[in-house]
Amino acid sequence: MRIYVIFLVVISLFASAFSDSILEYPSEIESRHKKAAEEDVNLHCTTWRFAAEMNNLAPWKTIPVECADYVKDYVMGKGYVTDLERVSEEALIFASSVEFSGDGKDIWIFDIDETLLSNLPYYIDHGFGLELFDHSEFDKWVEKGVAPAITPSLKLYQRVIDLGYKVFLLTGRKESHRLVTVENLINAGFQNWDKLILRSPEEQHKMATLYKSEKRDEMVKDGYRIRGNSGDQWSDLLGTSMSQRSFKLANPMYYIP
Amino acid sequence: MRIYVIFLVVISLFASAFSDSILEYPSEIESRHKKAAEEDVNLHCTTWRFAAEMNNLAPWKTIPVECADYVKDYVMGKGYVTDLERVSEEALIFASSVEFSGDGKDIWIFDIDETLLSNLPYYIDHGFGLELFDHSEFDKWVEKGVAPAITPSLKLYQRVIDLGYKVFLLTGRKESHRLVTVENLINAGFQNWDKLILRSPEEQHKMATLYKSEKRDEMVKDGYRIRGNSGDQWSDLLGTSMSQRSFKLANPMYYIP
Repeated sequence: MRIYVIFLVVISLFASAFSDSILEYPSEIESRHKKAAEEDVNLHCTTWRFAAEMNNLAPWKTIPVECADYVKDYVMGKGYVTDLERVSEEALIFASSVEFSGDGKDIWIFDIDETLLSNLPYYIDHGFGLELFDHSEFDKWVEKGVAPAITPSLKLYQRVIDLGYKVFLLTGRKESHRLVTVENLINAGFQNWDKLILRSPEEQHKMATLYKSEKRDEMVKDGYRIRGNSGDQWSDLLGTSMSQRSFKLANPMYYIP
Repeated sequence: MRIYVIFLVVISLFASAFSDSILEYPSEIESRHKKAAEEDVNLHCTTWRFAAEMNNLAPWKTIPVECADYVKDYVMGKGYVTDLERVSEEALIFASSVEFSGDGKDIWIFDIDETLLSNLPYYIDHGFGLELFDHSEFDKWVEKGVAPAITPSLKLYQRVIDLGYKVFLLTGRKESHRLVTVENLINAGFQNWDKLILRSPEEQHKMATLYKSEKRDEMVKDGYRIRGNSGDQWSDLLGTSMSQRSFKLANPMYYIP
């Protein structure tokens, strides 16, 4: 009996000392491999996102399939909202620093989709950019008129109007969506814009950069000073009659040339 | 004795079962808090880096002090080199897609510092952008002429020349650094550029955006088609006579307006 008990003691001490390594060794290797693979995907997709946001990519139609979870985690988690808050804060710092002439000719341009209004509820149901863009499906969503405000942009919008800027909304949405867009904007808290510019039927197939540049050219011809321009696409910001400062909101889900 | 041994068995089994939680509970809390704090800094600094790279920030003179380790880890780790490789690959895809007229008027512009040559050895000794820029210290580094090539850019550079583009180097470096710059470029593997444009003494205090725009205006006036432009600063890329496609290399260490 005594030997048996001593044996038990030795076994149990032995087990106590080595149980971790004996029991957990394979799962540790596994989890290390899994972690390394996750880090690789994370690195690759962060690089992709940067390249997309810096306008370094060729026109793209869907997000990379291997980055589906990464994009989902980013837009649903803290990353996206933190980025949106930051750009709103930076824009406000600039907006407040502009010295006004007081002639009512200082304007701020806002894009609408993914700038003032969020289509995230639509993209939650459509793979966060993994699915090819479906015009008729998206039109149905737009016609519901229920897109929520991007909260940091609403804050900037209100402050910019309080500061005395005229606000021009310049969107790629079509003229036939004017009514539902106005209703959606008002329901989401946006008021007192000065102009809402939508695509006319003959502008339907123009590249966004050209369409928006032409609209800005007209503003400049009318004597307006474009002080700020907020948009989630570089096609909102680049081209002719560019604004004094442009503010690029994050959007890793789709690209409009 | 028997009771003593049974006591030992119980104790050792008990220890085996609970040792982890008893011994590691406080350090687990600590490490969880530390991890959460690290995640917060990581999120904040990633947002800052995005805002910087998307040109959303007001002109900045140093990196945020809380992001010192983040920037160091990024430029010394896999992040920076992966981003540099990606932008080089994307530029090459575009460069290869351009249809040439064959009249020798298609050009590619490269900036030099942090685009072709890396000043990372200097920034390793100067806090990765945490220290205020010191002109005379940096001049001493430039005059050594030992800045290494940014390898992915060297690859792009060589391929662009092979494809038949003329290469114009457009740098904020001053004319008095021409010789040492030429030596440095050649030692780093760069050859066969068509023009090397440096700042003349009277251009010394011009904003980079204006200086580089004027130089591009001259190229366009001379009949050149600026197909691509690679630079780590938006002041390399924006302004007048912008290139057909611009490629923004990452640089989280400094900002040139």
